[in-house]
Amino acid sequence: MVVPRLIERKRDGGTLTGDEWRELIAAYSASQVPDYQMAAMAMAIFFRGLEPDELSALTDAMLASGERLRFEGEGRPRIDKHSTGGVGDKTSLLLAPMLAACGVLVPMMSGRGLGHTGGTLDKLEAIPGFTTGLSLHDTEAQVRLLGAAMIGQTAEIAPADGKLYALRDVTATVESIPLISASIMSKKLAEGLNGLVLDVKIGSGAFLPEPERALALAKTMIGLGAARGCPTVALVTAMDRPLGVACGNALEVVESIMGLRGEGPADLMELTYALGVEMLLLSGLDTDAAAARRRLEATVASGSALDVLEKMVKAQGGDATVIRHPDRLARAPIQRDVVARQGGVVIRVEPRALGRAIIELGGGRRVATDKVLPDVGLEVPVKPGQKVAKGDRLAVVHARTEEAAARAVDAVHAAIEIGDVPGESLPLIAWRVTSAGVTPYGAA
Amino acid sequence: MVVPRLIERKRDGGTLTGDEWRELIAAYSASQVPDYQMAAMAMAIFFRGLEPDELSALTDAMLASGERLRFEGEGRPRIDKHSTGGVGDKTSLLLAPMLAACGVLVPMMSGRGLGHTGGTLDKLEAIPGFTTGLSLHDTEAQVRLLGAAMIGQTAEIAPADGKLYALRDVTATVESIPLISASIMSKKLAEGLNGLVLDVKIGSGAFLPEPERALALAKTMIGLGAARGCPTVALVTAMDRPLGVACGNALEVVESIMGLRGEGPADLMELTYALGVEMLLLSGLDTDAAAARRRLEATVASGSALDVLEKMVKAQGGDATVIRHPDRLARAPIQRDVVARQGGVVIRVEPRALGRAIIELGGGRRVATDKVLPDVGLEVPVKPGQKVAKGDRLAVVHARTEEAAARAVDAVHAAIEIGDVPGESLPLIAWRVTSAGVTPYGAA
Repeated sequence: MVVPRLIERKRDGGTLTGDEWRELIAAYSASQVPDYQMAAMAMAIFFRGLEPDELSALTDAMLASGERLRFEGEGRPRIDKHSTGGVGDKTSLLLAPMLAACGVLVPMMSGRGLGHTGGTLDKLEAIPGFTTGLSLHDTEAQVRLLGAAMIGQTAEIAPADGKLYALRDVTATVESIPLISASIMSKKLAEGLNGLVLDVKIGSGAFLPEPERALALAKTMIGLGAARGCPTVALVTAMDRPLGVACGNALEVVESIMGLRGEGPADLMELTYALGVEMLLLSGLDTDAAAARRRLEATVASGSALDVLEKMVKAQGGDATVIRHPDRLARAPIQRDVVARQGGVVIRVEPRALGRAIIELGGGRRVATDKVLPDVGLEVPVKPGQKVAKGDRLAVVHARTEEAAARAVDAVHAAIEIGDVPGESLPLIAWRVTSAGVTPYGAA
Repeated sequence: MVVPRLIERKRDGGTLTGDEWRELIAAYSASQVPDYQMAAMAMAIFFRGLEPDELSALTDAMLASGERLRFEGEGRPRIDKHSTGGVGDKTSLLLAPMLAACGVLVPMMSGRGLGHTGGTLDKLEAIPGFTTGLSLHDTEAQVRLLGAAMIGQTAEIAPADGKLYALRDVTATVESIPLISASIMSKKLAEGLNGLVLDVKIGSGAFLPEPERALALAKTMIGLGAARGCPTVALVTAMDRPLGVACGNALEVVESIMGLRGEGPADLMELTYALGVEMLLLSGLDTDAAAARRRLEATVASGSALDVLEKMVKAQGGDATVIRHPDRLARAPIQRDVVARQGGVVIRVEPRALGRAIIELGGGRRVATDKVLPDVGLEVPVKPGQKVAKGDRLAVVHARTEEAAARAVDAVHAAIEIGDVPGESLPLIAWRVTSAGVTPYGAA
């Protein structure tokens, strides 16, 4: 295997064989192929794509580079959810406890902030002491005991993907349908699932803003799952504005706790329930959506979901008192209101620009080794289409220094456009995608 | 500067400012930007290209990353030649001594093997003891004293380009017009030249096989040179077959010595004289091509060029006795004839495949840190259009082991096609390109 020739072939629009993908990924995993060659290959894949056979081989090679969770003898269904990422997207923090409270096992493996979007692990680590670095054995045990665990990709699971994911983040090779598909599915298939729900974002803040590309991604992943015994369903959802109000690590934990108390923002709760319904349908516990929705709402009303979250935090070493006292979470020393400079209607609330402002505040990463700050971020209560008067609060900036706060205030002003005529905005959930095809959401 | 965003912008077809290129190259040069990010950027440039302003900024940033040769008070013209690379292309080894013997100063900075093509430095280092690692001070002194020095790119000259050149070689990002142009011109402009002649290859063994792309490269480099006080002329020449007979490091040194004795292969000598004529015209020593040609031929007839080579080898620490006794150069233990399996006419002699066979023999590099063997290689006396009988010798393989020899014999058979009808082959020199435009060679 002469790696530059493999890169060259992909660069020039050719294909690699299954054996070549297996050999390349094994060698990269063993650090025999350096990052710089894989970065060039990733950029070539960005431009040239992968044929279906190449994608299957790449996914299986990444899956085979590590171990899997094992649930032999376990009768309960195991279902996970995965989002392609966005700003303010904290549905994982609500869904794992809610589904566990319903009796579904949720072995949830999440990622860190990537590009301008936040990461579930970074959010969880805003809880003092919380560790996302469980062993596979401990993860299996906790899932069996509590119904859920929320962990990072360990060195045991798809290590080749772990390396490649970190590399893509710092080489602008994230937004590739085959690389996203192979990355997500190699990890999810290692979780030993009976079903998977995908939240595929569209709109300006999504990795793949265009609906056509997002649908292509959904179909690609659904095909990979179906061929490997993991039925997969996708909802295509809006990321042309942040989800919910809180954007930033500790801020999003607080909002998730509020959500499990029944006090979350409407859009966050609506999407959370919609995704949870799909998980329950795949689990077989419910066969109609209305019943599934009622079952989920009951976990909030009864407090059983919040109880699961509390137990999970405790089991994973975190300070579980924050669940009842969210004010104990880290809070940035400086809060600055961003107020409307003119009245009118909110035309857009640009999530990509807001995500970058959070990076500038220290809440996200420039390079893979950056530490993220738990306490900084933005609260953005306004939504497109909403009327505002001059002086109304558009957002609150949480910052470490006055200088950082001032820059973030400017960035938020640039990200929120106010005018006379409302802009177009996406429906919260546009389509439902299954192996059978694409249908407008709610049309069934 | 957030590097992933610069890569992303280039990836998506945008442009970077001059300041961004300067900052990026300075940071890469200082190892503050890792190779993997620059590899992704290089692949993005491969697909997206650079605007003229970006190319100027990149070239100047690489030039500014190091020192320059200084020839204050030196009245003699300083002219260099650069080839875009090929198989069997050893004209540099003939031209530096010939021009020096004419009174032109040739401060020649060359490269190592890149992709499937050989490198002048690797060839020179086949001479026992020869060092290409002279300091700038020693280079200046030797050029003033002997008329020529042949050195590698030192850490002092365009160090950013040195790093990037090595990286491109192992990431399949060599064949990019802007990257080739910036790389060549940043080094050449550091040589303190009064003129530069480019040998831009076309045909299947060239980095840029298509004439349109080769002409674009020539025009790009001529523009960069003209704007920086270094008049530049290009010849567009054939690399659809090897140049000369010898392909491999020591083998090419032997052939170069034979050439300076007046015993070189016809195609090698013809191209060498054509390039030398352009160098003499740029130097101002001659104003018409016929006189320049006679001046060059005289350096061979008189032995003055060979004398310069001998002095250069001695000055650069090499065993100068090899110049009079080329049989003292390293010779591989195994020679295998490759004989025609059928009679007919040679349709093609594929240089890219032959170059890769040399890499397999150990005479080239897979990764930047590979050592090259001096003694292995191929002698390929046949040319397209030539008639051969079954059993005629097509080539000689020089190898370290029987296994390697057998593989190379197979590779040579695959690279040399024999049939009934001659194929098309390129004229040795197709075009002459100057700031004034492109003319068919010899049409003036």
